[in-house]
Amino acid sequence: MALGNQEASAAPPQRMSPPCVVLVSGGLDSATILAMAKAQGFSPFAISFDYGQRHRFELEAAKRVCEAQGVARHVIIPLDLRSIGGSALTANIDVPKDRTDAELTSGIPITYVPARNTVFLSIALGWAEVIGAQDLFVGVNAVDYSGYPDCRPEFVAAFEKLANLATQTGVEGQPWKIHAPLIHLTKAEIIRQGVALGVDYSLTHSCYDPTSTGLSCGHCDSCLIRKKGFLEAHVPDPTRYAD
Amino acid sequence: MALGNQEASAAPPQRMSPPCVVLVSGGLDSATILAMAKAQGFSPFAISFDYGQRHRFELEAAKRVCEAQGVARHVIIPLDLRSIGGSALTANIDVPKDRTDAELTSGIPITYVPARNTVFLSIALGWAEVIGAQDLFVGVNAVDYSGYPDCRPEFVAAFEKLANLATQTGVEGQPWKIHAPLIHLTKAEIIRQGVALGVDYSLTHSCYDPTSTGLSCGHCDSCLIRKKGFLEAHVPDPTRYAD
Repeated sequence: MALGNQEASAAPPQRMSPPCVVLVSGGLDSATILAMAKAQGFSPFAISFDYGQRHRFELEAAKRVCEAQGVARHVIIPLDLRSIGGSALTANIDVPKDRTDAELTSGIPITYVPARNTVFLSIALGWAEVIGAQDLFVGVNAVDYSGYPDCRPEFVAAFEKLANLATQTGVEGQPWKIHAPLIHLTKAEIIRQGVALGVDYSLTHSCYDPTSTGLSCGHCDSCLIRKKGFLEAHVPDPTRYAD
Repeated sequence: MALGNQEASAAPPQRMSPPCVVLVSGGLDSATILAMAKAQGFSPFAISFDYGQRHRFELEAAKRVCEAQGVARHVIIPLDLRSIGGSALTANIDVPKDRTDAELTSGIPITYVPARNTVFLSIALGWAEVIGAQDLFVGVNAVDYSGYPDCRPEFVAAFEKLANLATQTGVEGQPWKIHAPLIHLTKAEIIRQGVALGVDYSLTHSCYDPTSTGLSCGHCDSCLIRKKGFLEAHVPDPTRYAD
């Protein structure tokens, strides 16, 4: 019995990985932050949203990414943003194609979904509080998508502040941390970091306007930025394009 | 024809009421802010949430209230917060009954739904942006429900700040206004103001744990606070209680 105790105490102490919640869309960015969260020692809980998006196919990619990387749990929250509309992703508005670099980086595109990241982070925050996490990971990026207001550092900082006021956890003095590790990276830099962490980008999906079988259009903003990212990163692009 | 033109120009100019979005739960507070928004000259768009709440019956009350007061549109957004749980309102946790005044006003109750008001306001914000509103009305109240972190003035202020950073509207320099006109009122003061505005409280529902036919339990926190409010306001309580 004493020996047993000795053996037990000789074993390295079990260090529990702290839980975190990762917003996983199924795209390239969120696959990368999932790997980053794991590399930082977190046990990721993944959350995705079935929000009436035109490119609902991305949820299949989200499942594949979560399965490949291993997550504590993956929930897909149904939330009908089509009843609100107002975006090319959630209403009957055409997705812009073949925009120039200048067009891609100027103004807020019609694919902007009003308050989407605020909504997604809020629901993720609620879940994080329930599972006892203090950390959220979100793949927002201010470089390539500079047009989206809710992808900027000031948005992330304001959300973190709100979280500390909005929740029992925050009020009881355990501060929230909203991790946005991609916010200042280019798409090429993101891809290089992901490759270094072993991310399999062939599992991911970025296209806003895929075919019914999930092939990427190759011409929407998201496809153009993705293509350019792989090119600049000198990493073969594993995406299956329709043409 | 000239006469017709004269008549037309003699008519008072049509002043369009600006739209606003009002969070309507079906309870006493939100029925009151709906009337307040109208009294302030807004054209209210009402939003409710079918979030897996135990007291889903409140949505019937929300419909009645919106119909009685007249709203530009009423949307009910399905959002399954049961997949997150963590509250007596969204998980298999008993709703506390017959708590004392001291218990009611100390600590955060188990009926707290993690991040609920953040989630609801975020979705309302998205809708408001689509319909071109700049104003949101929310019936949060820091007096009777002092235990809920997301019912405090500092939460509302932080959300307003976030809204201005999170949205196209905010970024383009049209500031959001989050109206929380009940935040410093007691339940009795809310009722008196509502009665003055003609609110029919018999249409509203507050109980967290109603019977299957929609009778109020009379013993949950929400019933106790409501009862006390009518008593202190010297207004007959129109609520149908189970006992």
